[in-house]
Amino acid sequence: MDDKICLNVGGTVFTAKMSTLRKYPSTLLGSISFESDCFVNEDKSFYFDRNPELFNTILDYYRNGCIHLPKHLCGWLWEAELKFWKIPLTEISECCHKTMSSFKKRQDISNVLRAVFATQNQSECTPTSNIGKNCHRLWLFLDEPSSSIWARVFSFVYLSIVLISASLPCLITHPGIRIQHTGTDAFLKKAEFINLTFWMNTDNPKEMNLATSEQPNWLHRTNLAVNFFFSMETVFRFLTCPVKKRFLKEWLNILDMYLFVIMWIRYGVIENYDKDLITNIRLAYFLCFCEVVSVLRLLRFFRLAKQYSSLRILFITIKDSVKELLLLLITFLVFGWMFANLIYYTEIREPDSFPNMLVGFWWSVVTMTTVGYGDVYPVGPLGKVVGVLCSLCGLLVLAMPIAIIAGNFDNLCRQNEEREAYANVQMSKKQKTSKTACNISSIIPANK
Amino acid sequence: MDDKICLNVGGTVFTAKMSTLRKYPSTLLGSISFESDCFVNEDKSFYFDRNPELFNTILDYYRNGCIHLPKHLCGWLWEAELKFWKIPLTEISECCHKTMSSFKKRQDISNVLRAVFATQNQSECTPTSNIGKNCHRLWLFLDEPSSSIWARVFSFVYLSIVLISASLPCLITHPGIRIQHTGTDAFLKKAEFINLTFWMNTDNPKEMNLATSEQPNWLHRTNLAVNFFFSMETVFRFLTCPVKKRFLKEWLNILDMYLFVIMWIRYGVIENYDKDLITNIRLAYFLCFCEVVSVLRLLRFFRLAKQYSSLRILFITIKDSVKELLLLLITFLVFGWMFANLIYYTEIREPDSFPNMLVGFWWSVVTMTTVGYGDVYPVGPLGKVVGVLCSLCGLLVLAMPIAIIAGNFDNLCRQNEEREAYANVQMSKKQKTSKTACNISSIIPANK
Amino acid sequence: MDDKICLNVGGTVFTAKMSTLRKYPSTLLGSISFESDCFVNEDKSFYFDRNPELFNTILDYYRNGCIHLPKHLCGWLWEAELKFWKIPLTEISECCHKTMSSFKKRQDISNVLRAVFATQNQSECTPTSNIGKNCHRLWLFLDEPSSSIWARVFSFVYLSIVLISASLPCLITHPGIRIQHTGTDAFLKKAEFINLTFWMNTDNPKEMNLATSEQPNWLHRTNLAVNFFFSMETVFRFLTCPVKKRFLKEWLNILDMYLFVIMWIRYGVIENYDKDLITNIRLAYFLCFCEVVSVLRLLRFFRLAKQYSSLRILFITIKDSVKELLLLLITFLVFGWMFANLIYYTEIREPDSFPNMLVGFWWSVVTMTTVGYGDVYPVGPLGKVVGVLCSLCGLLVLAMPIAIIAGNFDNLCRQNEEREAYANVQMSKKQKTSKTACNISSIIPANK
Amino acid sequence: MDDKICLNVGGTVFTAKMSTLRKYPSTLLGSISFESDCFVNEDKSFYFDRNPELFNTILDYYRNGCIHLPKHLCGWLWEAELKFWKIPLTEISECCHKTMSSFKKRQDISNVLRAVFATQNQSECTPTSNIGKNCHRLWLFLDEPSSSIWARVFSFVYLSIVLISASLPCLITHPGIRIQHTGTDAFLKKAEFINLTFWMNTDNPKEMNLATSEQPNWLHRTNLAVNFFFSMETVFRFLTCPVKKRFLKEWLNILDMYLFVIMWIRYGVIENYDKDLITNIRLAYFLCFCEVVSVLRLLRFFRLAKQYSSLRILFITIKDSVKELLLLLITFLVFGWMFANLIYYTEIREPDSFPNMLVGFWWSVVTMTTVGYGDVYPVGPLGKVVGVLCSLCGLLVLAMPIAIIAGNFDNLCRQNEEREAYANVQMSKKQKTSKTACNISSIIPANK
Repeated sequence: MDDKICLNVGGTVFTAKMSTLRKYPSTLLGSISFESDCFVNEDKSFYFDRNPELFNTILDYYRNGCIHLPKHLCGWLWEAELKFWKIPLTEISECCHKTMSSFKKRQDISNVLRAVFATQNQSECTPTSNIGKNCHRLWLFLDEPSSSIWARVFSFVYLSIVLISASLPCLITHPGIRIQHTGTDAFLKKAEFINLTFWMNTDNPKEMNLATSEQPNWLHRTNLAVNFFFSMETVFRFLTCPVKKRFLKEWLNILDMYLFVIMWIRYGVIENYDKDLITNIRLAYFLCFCEVVSVLRLLRFFRLAKQYSSLRILFITIKDSVKELLLLLITFLVFGWMFANLIYYTEIREPDSFPNMLVGFWWSVVTMTTVGYGDVYPVGPLGKVVGVLCSLCGLLVLAMPIAIIAGNFDNLCRQNEEREAYANVQMSKKQKTSKTACNISSIIPANK
Repeated sequence: MDDKICLNVGGTVFTAKMSTLRKYPSTLLGSISFESDCFVNEDKSFYFDRNPELFNTILDYYRNGCIHLPKHLCGWLWEAELKFWKIPLTEISECCHKTMSSFKKRQDISNVLRAVFATQNQSECTPTSNIGKNCHRLWLFLDEPSSSIWARVFSFVYLSIVLISASLPCLITHPGIRIQHTGTDAFLKKAEFINLTFWMNTDNPKEMNLATSEQPNWLHRTNLAVNFFFSMETVFRFLTCPVKKRFLKEWLNILDMYLFVIMWIRYGVIENYDKDLITNIRLAYFLCFCEVVSVLRLLRFFRLAKQYSSLRILFITIKDSVKELLLLLITFLVFGWMFANLIYYTEIREPDSFPNMLVGFWWSVVTMTTVGYGDVYPVGPLGKVVGVLCSLCGLLVLAMPIAIIAGNFDNLCRQNEEREAYANVQMSKKQKTSKTACNISSIIPANK
Repeated sequence: MDDKICLNVGGTVFTAKMSTLRKYPSTLLGSISFESDCFVNEDKSFYFDRNPELFNTILDYYRNGCIHLPKHLCGWLWEAELKFWKIPLTEISECCHKTMSSFKKRQDISNVLRAVFATQNQSECTPTSNIGKNCHRLWLFLDEPSSSIWARVFSFVYLSIVLISASLPCLITHPGIRIQHTGTDAFLKKAEFINLTFWMNTDNPKEMNLATSEQPNWLHRTNLAVNFFFSMETVFRFLTCPVKKRFLKEWLNILDMYLFVIMWIRYGVIENYDKDLITNIRLAYFLCFCEVVSVLRLLRFFRLAKQYSSLRILFITIKDSVKELLLLLITFLVFGWMFANLIYYTEIREPDSFPNMLVGFWWSVVTMTTVGYGDVYPVGPLGKVVGVLCSLCGLLVLAMPIAIIAGNFDNLCRQNEEREAYANVQMSKKQKTSKTACNISSIIPANK
Repeated sequence: MDDKICLNVGGTVFTAKMSTLRKYPSTLLGSISFESDCFVNEDKSFYFDRNPELFNTILDYYRNGCIHLPKHLCGWLWEAELKFWKIPLTEISECCHKTMSSFKKRQDISNVLRAVFATQNQSECTPTSNIGKNCHRLWLFLDEPSSSIWARVFSFVYLSIVLISASLPCLITHPGIRIQHTGTDAFLKKAEFINLTFWMNTDNPKEMNLATSEQPNWLHRTNLAVNFFFSMETVFRFLTCPVKKRFLKEWLNILDMYLFVIMWIRYGVIENYDKDLITNIRLAYFLCFCEVVSVLRLLRFFRLAKQYSSLRILFITIKDSVKELLLLLITFLVFGWMFANLIYYTEIREPDSFPNMLVGFWWSVVTMTTVGYGDVYPVGPLGKVVGVLCSLCGLLVLAMPIAIIAGNFDNLCRQNEEREAYANVQMSKKQKTSKTACNISSIIPANK
């Protein structure tokens, strides 16, 4: 009992045996001696100005050889405490490592969220020159709906033009809106004449309609105006952007530029070669391709995310859940293809179903997602057994990764709520402090 | 070591350095001195009558510069403690702010729930006059099923009449119940004569049936009786309601009044212009519109929520989840429309599917919700690839917000259960106290 | 500072002001005085042999006026502690009442689970007489698969006979197995002769097949044997059951008796009136009804729950979630019927869809559950909008209660796992103790 | 008050009554006396070098008779503490047993995960002989993608060959790729001649195509090459495997060997009996069976799990959730069959739907999983009611077990993340230690 020493930690007295403390000589407690600064001669104890509540855990490290963290205290506290006592973080036992790792993970997510939402108030770098100021004002007007009332109005205008631009392809191709310029019979004759039927299906009403009619003039003009608006907006936003690099990093801007290029190429082609269109396959295909790839114009709607944090969280979730999405896709495809094989072989004696394995794959996907159109379905008894297995398997294979992704989204939403709550609290504090600071600064000169 | 001072907090002794305490001079500990009231001369320490368990965290604030709250203690305690030591709530570090914000959120939800369920026992403001008393009794009878046994009976009668009123439109329009008053041939002749076919489709069996037959007399009378009952009920409830303002705030009452107006207008029109109906398009359209908007009469069934807390929680959830519902709708519509575009262009060479883009939108919605009627489905291989993507995308886009809404519902249900448990406990306490109070009050006069 | 007193709780010294303690005179601390037993004169303090960790919370009650429970301690401890200090449980503040109520709820569930799973080992009341013993042995053999190896074998035999009995209706009605006894033409003639066609549809192949063919002899015998087996089993189980009351409470036994009655009535009718069957409508309807209600025989399969705890938990979940199931049904029906109304009115101009509102209801149910057969679907644009709303609404309305029910199931499964883990630990303890007890009992007589 | 004793636990003084401690004489505290080693004469107290925070719980055991564990401390700590005080673990009360059992469960899962992921670095047992070394190098190259850059390349090659092998059956059976060797008419004549039609359906285009055409030569060669590759790979992997036993335990290896056997048997048969194939039914059936069972070749894709931990977790989840999967299957089948019975009887009067009960079962499965092809659906009103119940019942019956399985997956994913985080921390520690060790070992000899 000779080696019993007293440790006064923040007022509370702990006793320990010197021999147990000596077990880890590289730590602070393992290296103390009666000559240390912290030794107080009067009450023959070592004094440390630390939290006594945490010290039990520290002392237990010397007794048990590993650290078990109480779960009710913050990871930050433990990090600071272990650093003070010179105990490496790696000494935390596996069963309690969760406390520390979940704290770190939370902090990482917190940082990500702060970074994402911080881009909104990047208005710190205000330029000094006159032109620069106007530029910056224009930039804020175009890109930052929360900067002024006019910017907000512009943002609503922008979104409604996106809405119009989204409805345009529907109007342009709708048979009820297009104006017929050639009679069907006349066209058929002409088509036969220029040998058009080798690549065009004249029995297809959609193709016939597109070939014999054109969009009304007002639609054409609206389309042009909308595209002009977006082009101007993109150009001005790029020109006034203070940090060009960050501009090129945002996927919405890249989308804008991509659409900008596609649109004007398309217009150029149409304007110049409009008459050759029907006879020139390659051109028609190219234009059709342009049309398809410009479907992405709808994604412009997600510029709404600027003002709408939930949507932004959704994107972060999808970005963070790449691993789960990949898992979903791989298991889905492997099982889908397996059931495609099975259904083909089990239904081989049925004359009317599953002419080839690709149809089987389509069926297994439609079944696994429980969509079930009913265009193909197993007919024979064995095929139906495969169908039952396929639908159950699909439910399982889909439920697992989707539950995790939904959980990630839930998690991020919660953290974002907390971030917002904290930001609000800090905002009010700053305002109060700045007021106090003002008061003080107005008082201090007087003191001088 | 000179500046080491002793702090006696609720019996436990803490030691701290004066210099560290002086860091935050605006707080209580930062401003203590040996002249303070709390300094006890005998044992040379500062005495505070506070919880020593919480004081560790307070002292750590001076040591570390920020507050990290242990998670196992209630937010209320921390609020009170920080107020006592004059430390602003904004000093809580971000990682531990959750403890406080989740506590506040719980309290907010608790208040909302209490407010919602408190409207049921608004019977405190009992009037004094005789008429007023009868009014109030009638009001309770009509509006508060839990007030008496008769009110409960009335509530069941009310709900069964709602049930009858819900089944009426089905009966009125059912071809098997309507009585034919005109032969089909006679009507067709007449229709041709008065040039009716320009707005009526005589090939449509439903329209023909409605035009050539009428509802039986007993149905007409039942309908009238049911509407009369609801009108009376609404009028009486409005007249006897003690607080008219609150009456007009409840959506169920507004629904009642709206249906009241619609119903009687409709009756007036039918009674007066019955004979012109077939020839007068506008009137027919107006009546049809009346019929459609009175579909909302079914919502009267939700008056059941008065007695049925789960249903009420469901409504609160939907009201609280507006943000998520909006997110669901926006992403759903954007992705749906995008897939509508894609499927239209990829299936343009297939003659029989997707005549226009609106059909494509209908298909993409039906696929994303995994309903899959099978009225339209992709035929070509590229279209099928789009179909696979569409169904998977739909699963993801729907799963995320719905999981959150379901989580909100779960959360509210739990809190409501707790609220009920607490209310029950408090109820039993009150009863006990009131009994004791009675006893005491019967004793005290004797003491006088 | 005169009223400062010392409280020694389990070795730790707390100081408090007498005035604060006097606030609640009905509690233990509020009524202490220097004459109390617990006052120790030597160190001028009140001594209590209690846990000092919990005492902080108790003392805070006097300081703050309400109790806030730390979440990391068990509800049982707080109950005992508050009882000791004579503080009523109702003083717990609302924000911390959860700790106590969730503890109580867990305990309730735990009791329910223990009660449910205890019925398995009801073998304690072993009778003494010879017949009684045999009875009891037979009972265990029939009802308790875990009692012996033979009982387990019997249980498997039972389940396989259930399987056979389940497949019988399919075999009996399958056109490929039934043996034709009358030619179709002969039957049609006969049917016309006895005027059968007024209630039988001779165009329906199923009805025709049932009328002109009979089940093969081996099927009839198997059916009889299976029913005989179940009847005997039920009779024997009832006769040997030690507690007849409990027997009648279990729904599986009631099902057995109900099927017993149905089966033999059916056999009696068939044996006696076989020849009149075709001409006697009422008899045929009655037999058909018997057949339908005996579908419940499949539920016998759930006797498997005896050995299979997960299944049992599923039943408890469904029983406990009646509230949520009701909510699901009500909201489902109300919204379903509302969409039925809407779709009928919006599709009234389409000739081929939704002939009446009941078809609309069927459609809305099929859409809300996302089954989507595709037998009816909206055709017009307005109807499609209603369809989109209906499917989204269905997803929401279904997701909320189902998430709660699934959560309840998860919860019960977890608690059951814990119960099993605890039971195993206690079992091993008992075995050890009983061994020790044996040793002791063998030693003690020697001591005598 | 005579029996009050002082216990000094790690510096903190607790007082207790000797009589209460004596209640459990088999424990450490129950058997202490003033002659014990731990009795310190100077301050008349028993000294124990333990954590005082935990001692409150220990002392409460003597006061209350059962142990209630605070939830914020690790199960390991409690195990060690209870062992020290000689209190059996079985004394933990039921309400707090969860803390201990969940700790144990977490540890079990942790061990399982460590075992699963440890097989990857089984490279410890390096052989010494030259051949052995080459063997081992080959083994690592074939089986351990993370061992070297070449092994990684090989793994990608392997997966792409799996991909090719997966697409082969589709290509071989696709009518657009097969080369016709016999005219349809010629074949039909021949078929009639050799009486082939008794087992072949000449109206089935799929069968006709398979009989009159053959795969192109390049496909045949690719198929042979792919199979040769897999055979060689399996053989080499088996030969070079250091622990043959473990090789035979892994299901992927067994799959490889099974496919190896199937493939070569199939080739043998085709090569030798190619000409008899059409006339020999048994042979054709046998080959078809071979083809079907070799569908499992797709599972080779899951060798990806070697590098992809999420996939591995998915497999562990499915293995651990056997209980829930069984529950899912049983309830699904029982309810499915019950609804099959019900729908058959309720739809017996409808001529066109549900010809027999098996079709009813197919329908109920398709409805319960909400797939809803629409090939069969109830037509009559009663049948539709059964349909509504079936779909709702299916949603419930499926949601419950699937939620648990998804929860298990979520749980395992989280634990795996923590395991990885911990492993990374430990890895960095080892590297640091080994460096330090090197330094020390280079210093120590100098000290000698």
